Amino acid sequence: MWDTAEELGALLIFAEHRYYGESLPFGDESYSNAKYLNYLTSEQALADFAVLIENLKKSFPGAQNSPVIAIGGSYGGMLSAWLRMKYPSVVIGALAASAPIWQFTDMVPCGDFYKIVTQDFANSGINCSKNIRRSWMAVNNVSSTEEGLQWLYKEFGLCSPLKEEDVGGFKGWLQETWVNLAMVDYPYEANFLQPLPRWPIKVVCSHLQFDTGVSDKQLLHGIAQAVKVYYNYTGSAVCLNTSQTATGSLGFRGWFYQACTEMVMPMCTDGIQDMFEPQVWNFQAFSDECYEIFGVRPREHWAGSVYGGKNIGSHSNIVFSNGGLDPWMSGGVTKNLSDSLVAIVIPDGAHHLDLRYNNEYDPQTVVRARALEVQYFKQWIKHSTLTR
Amino acid sequence: MWDTAEELGALLIFAEHRYYGESLPFGDESYSNAKYLNYLTSEQALADFAVLIENLKKSFPGAQNSPVIAIGGSYGGMLSAWLRMKYPSVVIGALAASAPIWQFTDMVPCGDFYKIVTQDFANSGINCSKNIRRSWMAVNNVSSTEEGLQWLYKEFGLCSPLKEEDVGGFKGWLQETWVNLAMVDYPYEANFLQPLPRWPIKVVCSHLQFDTGVSDKQLLHGIAQAVKVYYNYTGSAVCLNTSQTATGSLGFRGWFYQACTEMVMPMCTDGIQDMFEPQVWNFQAFSDECYEIFGVRPREHWAGSVYGGKNIGSHSNIVFSNGGLDPWMSGGVTKNLSDSLVAIVIPDGAHHLDLRYNNEYDPQTVVRARALEVQYFKQWIKHSTLTR
Repeated sequence: MWDTAEELGALLIFAEHRYYGESLPFGDESYSNAKYLNYLTSEQALADFAVLIENLKKSFPGAQNSPVIAIGGSYGGMLSAWLRMKYPSVVIGALAASAPIWQFTDMVPCGDFYKIVTQDFANSGINCSKNIRRSWMAVNNVSSTEEGLQWLYKEFGLCSPLKEEDVGGFKGWLQETWVNLAMVDYPYEANFLQPLPRWPIKVVCSHLQFDTGVSDKQLLHGIAQAVKVYYNYTGSAVCLNTSQTATGSLGFRGWFYQACTEMVMPMCTDGIQDMFEPQVWNFQAFSDECYEIFGVRPREHWAGSVYGGKNIGSHSNIVFSNGGLDPWMSGGVTKNLSDSLVAIVIPDGAHHLDLRYNNEYDPQTVVRARALEVQYFKQWIKHSTLTR
Repeated sequence: MWDTAEELGALLIFAEHRYYGESLPFGDESYSNAKYLNYLTSEQALADFAVLIENLKKSFPGAQNSPVIAIGGSYGGMLSAWLRMKYPSVVIGALAASAPIWQFTDMVPCGDFYKIVTQDFANSGINCSKNIRRSWMAVNNVSSTEEGLQWLYKEFGLCSPLKEEDVGGFKGWLQETWVNLAMVDYPYEANFLQPLPRWPIKVVCSHLQFDTGVSDKQLLHGIAQAVKVYYNYTGSAVCLNTSQTATGSLGFRGWFYQACTEMVMPMCTDGIQDMFEPQVWNFQAFSDECYEIFGVRPREHWAGSVYGGKNIGSHSNIVFSNGGLDPWMSGGVTKNLSDSLVAIVIPDGAHHLDLRYNNEYDPQTVVRARALEVQYFKQWIKHSTLTR
């Protein structure tokens, strides 16, 4: 983004989403009850950005007629696309990087997400996804005795002892770790969710090359080594905290509330096409959980209604970029919808790799994708200047 | 609409806007305080319509893939246009009849509205607008004595005696009466705001043909006769109620609240290019009035931000129809913005005349406009069916 901005002579503005970071509308109380949380919606965030942009254009000398392009990755990429869809008078176009705008009810198969995660591990080392698939049963076996629970606690270097009732949560934590690794499988050292080596899944898989016949504990020793690649690459972790899978600043609570209201993203696994324990998507159970935690129930179909679902062909000037390694590509726009709704797939890219910049290590695929993006930006700017 | 629906084999659905008619989210309490009124916004209404349409399509056998066109007049026309802009996945196009989507801050001159009213009267009878312009001073003069107030009360057949402090309100009521007449100056008998004869302004003006030199009371006698065309065409009115200018069902309170929040429409008069007492647009005074009545202050620029103001060229499939006699044409889209954002002006039409249908008396201009509208509908339908 920095280099692109320089090339275009553009100002880069990073806008913080309401209820995240320091943008707390009710201060420390913002998350305290459903009444205060009620203003945390993507629609409100889009309105914030629209008003912010209009105000910036008024206040910055010479900016009054400057064209604006929305750029974002992940949920930010969804917002970028939606900002162009809902406020085309405010932004002339959008780059939606790794934006799963179709990861909603009835739009894509619920299992695609975990299939991609699995492929990443299958392609990063011999027996890698197979051993992860076998690890769930191994956890069940080992954790069935008090001694085994104690062993797991020590082997993984957990911050607190593992109890029988924690085993489900422990497996969930492992599952989320693999998902996160799939998202950040970058070709160079980076620190998005955690500080990590280049191609971290390759490093993870180097600990998981066992053939069949290995014992449960041998297998789980490998899993523990693998997990530590993610949680302790820097060597500074004192212990592993199973209630956390990413460095603290990503606003998990906020996103969970959004998932419990508008951003309902069905996910499922079958243990065959993916390496996880089979789990169907159960909207009712999810809704009950939301009600218990926040006192709200999700609106299952609203995201599709408000943002058009698959029927977005009348919009224009959006580039959807995707990473072939990124599980979120499952809900992304991966084919051109029209001349001005364009899809890019970076085969060896993880989650919004194109928004990063690493002169030395950027793969050619990323360099080409970014060049194409800039070409669209220039085209939009030219057109907007001509029609003003 | 009825005939057009028949021609297209279409189902006509009339959706009631929240907070109007029977659609009261908090029952009889809906208007009781700012907290309950908080959900009365055009955005919420659009969302209602989007969800309603999606549900109807799911529930009506065979309707699942039917294309939907939004149709509306006045504020309903604005909503139709905005529904297409904000929910293009839900409606393939919109007819926005007499929809003043540009009657907002900084979009059109605030005096245009009353200029059109004045022109209607100027063109409907000799000296007509001149005498209305002179009438304000005549009211001031006559109402300056107790006897004069009593005379006005009797002459106009008011429901309650006129007091000195009511004179401002009385003039406001007269002004609103002329505005309403301009809106409903239809070529045949109709009953929109009031039951009225065909070309009612012509009938009104037949009472206002005096030359200069007539006395204040003579002039106001004519005004009283003229006003009664509007309020007592049926002859059944016992007295005239200056707190009301239209039959009760239009939801004035709701609209006033919307004007006090989002729908800020600046209006002004100068007494030269129009026939009214000069009055500048005073946002602060308006805001203070809103605060006093509803406890809210209007967001002066929000309508422009959320609906794009003059910068709506990236949208598609909207026909904006306008009436040349209709004061609301001042805020309408009267020129084509693109191949698929089309303007129609019916020179001898009042407020959304094209949504009415009167086989015998429809002017040729209306017949032609309607034929053009249907042509666009068919084009949108054809295209939506091809690309499905």
